[in-house]
Amino acid sequence: MATIPYKIYLTEEEMPRAWYNLRADMKNKPAPLLNPGTHQPMKAEELAPVFCEELIRQELDNDTPYFEIPEEVFNFYKMYRPSPLVRAYCLEEALKTPAKIYYKFEGNNTSGSHKLNSAIAQAYYAKKQGLKGVTTETGAGQWGTALSMACAYLGLDCKVFMVKVSYEQKPFRREVMRTYGASVTPSPSMTTEVGRKILAAHPGTTGSLGCAISEAVEAAVTSDGYRYVLGSVLNQVLLHQSVIGLETEAALKKYDIHPDIIIGCAGGGSNLGGLISPFMRDKIKGIADYRIVAVEPASCPSFTRGKYAYDFCDTGMVCPLAKMYTLGSGFIPAPNHAGGLRYHGMSSILSQLYDDGLLEAVAVPQTSVFEAAERFARVEGILPAPESSHAIKVAIDEAEKCRETGEAKTIVFGLTGTGYFDMVAYEKYHDGKMDDYIPTDEELEASFSQLPRI
Amino acid sequence: MATIPYKIYLTEEEMPRAWYNLRADMKNKPAPLLNPGTHQPMKAEELAPVFCEELIRQELDNDTPYFEIPEEVFNFYKMYRPSPLVRAYCLEEALKTPAKIYYKFEGNNTSGSHKLNSAIAQAYYAKKQGLKGVTTETGAGQWGTALSMACAYLGLDCKVFMVKVSYEQKPFRREVMRTYGASVTPSPSMTTEVGRKILAAHPGTTGSLGCAISEAVEAAVTSDGYRYVLGSVLNQVLLHQSVIGLETEAALKKYDIHPDIIIGCAGGGSNLGGLISPFMRDKIKGIADYRIVAVEPASCPSFTRGKYAYDFCDTGMVCPLAKMYTLGSGFIPAPNHAGGLRYHGMSSILSQLYDDGLLEAVAVPQTSVFEAAERFARVEGILPAPESSHAIKVAIDEAEKCRETGEAKTIVFGLTGTGYFDMVAYEKYHDGKMDDYIPTDEELEASFSQLPRI
Repeated sequence: MATIPYKIYLTEEEMPRAWYNLRADMKNKPAPLLNPGTHQPMKAEELAPVFCEELIRQELDNDTPYFEIPEEVFNFYKMYRPSPLVRAYCLEEALKTPAKIYYKFEGNNTSGSHKLNSAIAQAYYAKKQGLKGVTTETGAGQWGTALSMACAYLGLDCKVFMVKVSYEQKPFRREVMRTYGASVTPSPSMTTEVGRKILAAHPGTTGSLGCAISEAVEAAVTSDGYRYVLGSVLNQVLLHQSVIGLETEAALKKYDIHPDIIIGCAGGGSNLGGLISPFMRDKIKGIADYRIVAVEPASCPSFTRGKYAYDFCDTGMVCPLAKMYTLGSGFIPAPNHAGGLRYHGMSSILSQLYDDGLLEAVAVPQTSVFEAAERFARVEGILPAPESSHAIKVAIDEAEKCRETGEAKTIVFGLTGTGYFDMVAYEKYHDGKMDDYIPTDEELEASFSQLPRI
Repeated sequence: MATIPYKIYLTEEEMPRAWYNLRADMKNKPAPLLNPGTHQPMKAEELAPVFCEELIRQELDNDTPYFEIPEEVFNFYKMYRPSPLVRAYCLEEALKTPAKIYYKFEGNNTSGSHKLNSAIAQAYYAKKQGLKGVTTETGAGQWGTALSMACAYLGLDCKVFMVKVSYEQKPFRREVMRTYGASVTPSPSMTTEVGRKILAAHPGTTGSLGCAISEAVEAAVTSDGYRYVLGSVLNQVLLHQSVIGLETEAALKKYDIHPDIIIGCAGGGSNLGGLISPFMRDKIKGIADYRIVAVEPASCPSFTRGKYAYDFCDTGMVCPLAKMYTLGSGFIPAPNHAGGLRYHGMSSILSQLYDDGLLEAVAVPQTSVFEAAERFARVEGILPAPESSHAIKVAIDEAEKCRETGEAKTIVFGLTGTGYFDMVAYEKYHDGKMDDYIPTDEELEASFSQLPRI
């Protein structure tokens, strides 16, 4: 068999031409979105004022296994995809582990992460529908940057509401979005009714994804020719992100590599859901028995300490209700929480898989995440995003277990992006100013008490 | 013939295994470094207190055409190389030009530029010599980051003197270097004798590469087990950077592409010298007749307005004298100059080629560079470094000429890196706070009057 190169690249011909819809193969389908007034499943026409038509079709379709990637989207993909599947030879050596470690690296594009995979798809459908522009929220800024890039490419207007704490910690992110022609507003803001309401109730709040979503939705429904787009959580986003998993699967097959463990970080679930999709399909079908592990921050532990229940997707309660593992829509991670992955809930698809026991989850404290990040950077070169470093942390843990047991397991993890705009967080870590605050049971109980009664 | 993909990647097997030494094929060899006291060519033993032994050998060798890339360096290369040769399909379409545009993209690594190619080589030879560490200067911060990464990988100590204006404009660069374990001192500093002297003579100076070099050299020769390494200008650096040109040549041959024009930005000359090396070889040998174009900032115009003369490489005059196109070692670009490419002189190799008429040069004003950068980013995705954008500017100019004439020329340019740490400069541009100040003839004459009399 051929030696496995440091980086496995597919050719353009080997790139996937269709997204894979894992819902088609799930035995228990994810719970539908509910109308917050009637508690009945949302119909396409109810979603139409908020979302693009084709994206609604994708959102509601639990049956079609493959959706063809439109030619225009595929051409955009070719500018930065396929992304490499990297063999972490140097990390393996540093860890003195018999384990074989691979990572799918999605950071080699200006948005710095996998978010571009769905941004271009969503912008494309908005353009095709004849819209003027789109609105969105962004947390750490990766999604906002990705959407700005996609909109610049297609000539669409792009309005971004950025969680205030990130806006202040990452001034350069704003400038990148501006380079791509987007407008960026720190959230909560006085530009929307819901923003003004949140500011009145919580003056001085540093914001949350939940707030920013409410503002972006309001901005879309009150502007002519605009729709709202979202970078994670939704079924359609996981559909687009399946390109990560499909490429990973093809790269592994090319060299006849059989993974034992697949690891991804989980905030809203877009990367994890995309990465694992073909592997979860095989697991559901009984073809393979992978361990599939979601890693979340201990400061925002939706899977490991959340409740599986219908909840609001946003703080302003303007969105449909989704059934998910959630900390409650009022939950906001402690201000010292440095990375992304700060959403209160988790993708309905992943929530169902977790509830079905097909997915494991582990929560890790943030200083251990930065420790793993730095260790990784020094031997593998790439300076990882804090989000991605959650997966690195658990991949290292698993590889170290292999060192103890002598097992040569094959570990695959998702390296979703780079940390070039996260240096304030790295500085905190270097200066010993980072702590591992986690929410108390009392705090979570208080948050759970706000869950809607369905 | 096969369709040309968006990105041409070589396989690991196709990667060059030796660096190419253009000097071996130059009819007029570059002028030797001179001892500043005796004005005699520097001998290896005179350079030994400052530089690593093997690097001195490479520096002084004008005859050996190929130097094998050591296995350890090649393994490091495999972590981020080969770099893609990208067909700029989207830029071509936006420009409505019949020209075919390719760029060799060196930014897909954490240092964000081509600098890593020489950093790992220099760090490797330092390690092999049994040294404890290395010292260096950095301007925009790309070289310092690259060297930090290489040193972290090999377990060497790394002391970086960073030009003060960049240190202040790019605080996050410092944090990246710190992540890789380097120490970073803003230059001029009070930690060296030469730094204290420069600060006494020019209080409030924002620094220059020339100052930082003097400090780094002093720090090396006064510390046990340390040597000084440099990221550009020197022959050895151009040798290592030949990997860019060799990969580009191989990628073009793979698809039977024949370039007409090769364009690179030029500061000290490391990227340009590396990119053009095999093409210049063919030009010297009369095998091909490429136009080869150096692009420099109008605010620091070594080629287009400099003198070809022996000069000091550093402000403190502690280094050997080099014959080069120079603005005088006391020259410091106006504070409003945003990008890198701020060195007062130019590689001796490139200076000789320019003097021989084998190389063209053009100087471009900085606002036009940022305009080109933004235009490029919006269609090609990648947010380019200001340095690299000098080459983009001229590539676009040439492609637009083709639109006028109808010629389908093939243009290849070097996209040396990404601008993620240059957002302060982009912000200035967006806010209309950038000007195109260029040095007056009087300023240059005053600077030339300080040239040593050889």
